[in-house]
Amino acid sequence: MKLHIPGPVDVAPDVLEKMATPMIGHRTKEISNLQKSISEKVKKLFFTNNQIILSTSSGSGLMEMAIRSCTKNAAAVFSVGSFGDRWYKMGKANGLNVDVFRAEPGKPTTPEIVEEALKTGKYDLITVTHNETSTAVMNPVDKIGEVVKKYPDVVFCIDAVSSMGGVKIDTDNWGIDICITSTQKCVGLPPGLSIASVSEKAYNRANEVKNRGLYFDLVEVYKMAAEKNQYPSTPSISHMFALDYQLSKILDKEGLENRFARHHELAVYMREWTNKYFKVFAEPGYESQTLTTIENTRGIDVGKLIKELEKEGHLIGNGYGDLKDKTFRIAHMNERTLDELKELLCLIEQKLDLK
Amino acid sequence: MKLHIPGPVDVAPDVLEKMATPMIGHRTKEISNLQKSISEKVKKLFFTNNQIILSTSSGSGLMEMAIRSCTKNAAAVFSVGSFGDRWYKMGKANGLNVDVFRAEPGKPTTPEIVEEALKTGKYDLITVTHNETSTAVMNPVDKIGEVVKKYPDVVFCIDAVSSMGGVKIDTDNWGIDICITSTQKCVGLPPGLSIASVSEKAYNRANEVKNRGLYFDLVEVYKMAAEKNQYPSTPSISHMFALDYQLSKILDKEGLENRFARHHELAVYMREWTNKYFKVFAEPGYESQTLTTIENTRGIDVGKLIKELEKEGHLIGNGYGDLKDKTFRIAHMNERTLDELKELLCLIEQKLDLK
Repeated sequence: MKLHIPGPVDVAPDVLEKMATPMIGHRTKEISNLQKSISEKVKKLFFTNNQIILSTSSGSGLMEMAIRSCTKNAAAVFSVGSFGDRWYKMGKANGLNVDVFRAEPGKPTTPEIVEEALKTGKYDLITVTHNETSTAVMNPVDKIGEVVKKYPDVVFCIDAVSSMGGVKIDTDNWGIDICITSTQKCVGLPPGLSIASVSEKAYNRANEVKNRGLYFDLVEVYKMAAEKNQYPSTPSISHMFALDYQLSKILDKEGLENRFARHHELAVYMREWTNKYFKVFAEPGYESQTLTTIENTRGIDVGKLIKELEKEGHLIGNGYGDLKDKTFRIAHMNERTLDELKELLCLIEQKLDLK
Repeated sequence: MKLHIPGPVDVAPDVLEKMATPMIGHRTKEISNLQKSISEKVKKLFFTNNQIILSTSSGSGLMEMAIRSCTKNAAAVFSVGSFGDRWYKMGKANGLNVDVFRAEPGKPTTPEIVEEALKTGKYDLITVTHNETSTAVMNPVDKIGEVVKKYPDVVFCIDAVSSMGGVKIDTDNWGIDICITSTQKCVGLPPGLSIASVSEKAYNRANEVKNRGLYFDLVEVYKMAAEKNQYPSTPSISHMFALDYQLSKILDKEGLENRFARHHELAVYMREWTNKYFKVFAEPGYESQTLTTIENTRGIDVGKLIKELEKEGHLIGNGYGDLKDKTFRIAHMNERTLDELKELLCLIEQKLDLK
């Protein structure tokens, strides 16, 4: 089955093979060297000099770590869909003082709405989704970052789960304090590990916050990663082996610029195709570079289409949450090539008799 | 390198291979069937009819889920070492009302101390370590369970991280509400996934507790596992493939009785050897069946011994936390055979010139 869902993605056979590497101890020099090697490469992928941490959890785990460990007074969550809302739920589920600012469906979080919220002086942490996996809206985090820089006490957290590795995210220049991604999307590994860069500012903030919990305590995880290149709990060593290998492939074999250009080419093709037959759900100018949410303007039976494509060996995604059947989703991330994408779209044209 | 540390353990090559299984979607029938298959097998391993949940985290993650989600008024933590203490730290780090009852080093948690605490009527949750990975004390959870049964409002949580799969744990007969293990010990997988059985009583309790967080919210995880055989967040699918395969090996190929008998044989041999040259740290009658903590009665240079054994391709564990250098640890779990254990002990005799 070819996976066109926005994660888990198809993993290259040589990367999968690394998941089967024999075990090593989690308190050895060997594992510290592995963590060091991963860190150096992740820094290049993230365009950051901040501390890199790994978490044996999905991306949601690190999102919860960020908002819980670093909100001292109040957090503002800017949401453009289900995964933005998830950050709000996390805040609430941890008893935090948190407000949510939702954009209209398909619309982005604008620098203006962020500025308006920050002006109140109420918030010391904000969360923004870089690439919303439900609506496939990509937010202008660079421009939002310019606003946030005017408020030096605000910890700036970004969910880049479904975009990191497919589009350039200039973490340090954009002023991102905590940038989070997960392995099963554009990074091209199986699910089970997530990655974040964490600024000293975020770390210092966490030191002032109580009730941070233990497994997702940013202070303990950051400290042990920084001092020993190890983790308080045993990490998923298999994922670490595969990640180290895959990062080399991304950085040295394909090269970041080529990787981003390939993703861009696919996104543009996908967008044109979508607007020819349906409509891109995201507002023009804010379309994701790694997946497309297609507005079901033709009123097709999405469930039926998914089933028929499955029979042919292709899995695409239905709309997420409220957007089920009203939209459907096609990811164009990780190793996907233009030819493979064209093949899928051709098949959809046939199944739906599109002309 | 042969791993004699108490996890991660050496993983059989055919099990490792399953970690490289190609990806499938996390919202498909295929994954639900995989979860169902794992559940049925885990129930046999755990001797339980309770709901089985998996967590993409180390065992600590599920321990935190248990104590945080199910403590309504106050929790009593019974500790016989560092991992018992960890449960207390988790309670504190989540702002819970929690007391710790520590046994003397090497001594067990007795049914009497548990009864004394429960008599106060103060606690609605208790945690007991079945097999303490630092001191290698194995607690009489069966007898403790008899006491707990007299207090039907108490949620009974067990850390079986380093014993499940190596010794029979009669979850339902012992009245355990939440029984937790991790994959990288006696279950014989790489680290990165943990497993728990959860009673309806524990689930009902969690529904009454506020601020359970999101990633480790027992209610959401239990509900989705029970209703859909899926998880709120994307799980480590690679571990699930390997776990399903390895559980079949344990249940059908070796058989539980044989597996427990093999672990018992190794434990007895290890104990006799230890008491011949050193001293088993655990009080007689409470020795672990899966690892041995050796009291350094000869004042040997533990760090030097570990290094010398490493050169020969064997990794053993130093004492944990405060017990570093005062003890050292040898695990005899998962696939380990008596011949392999003898080979290691012979090597130690040579290195230390033991007679």
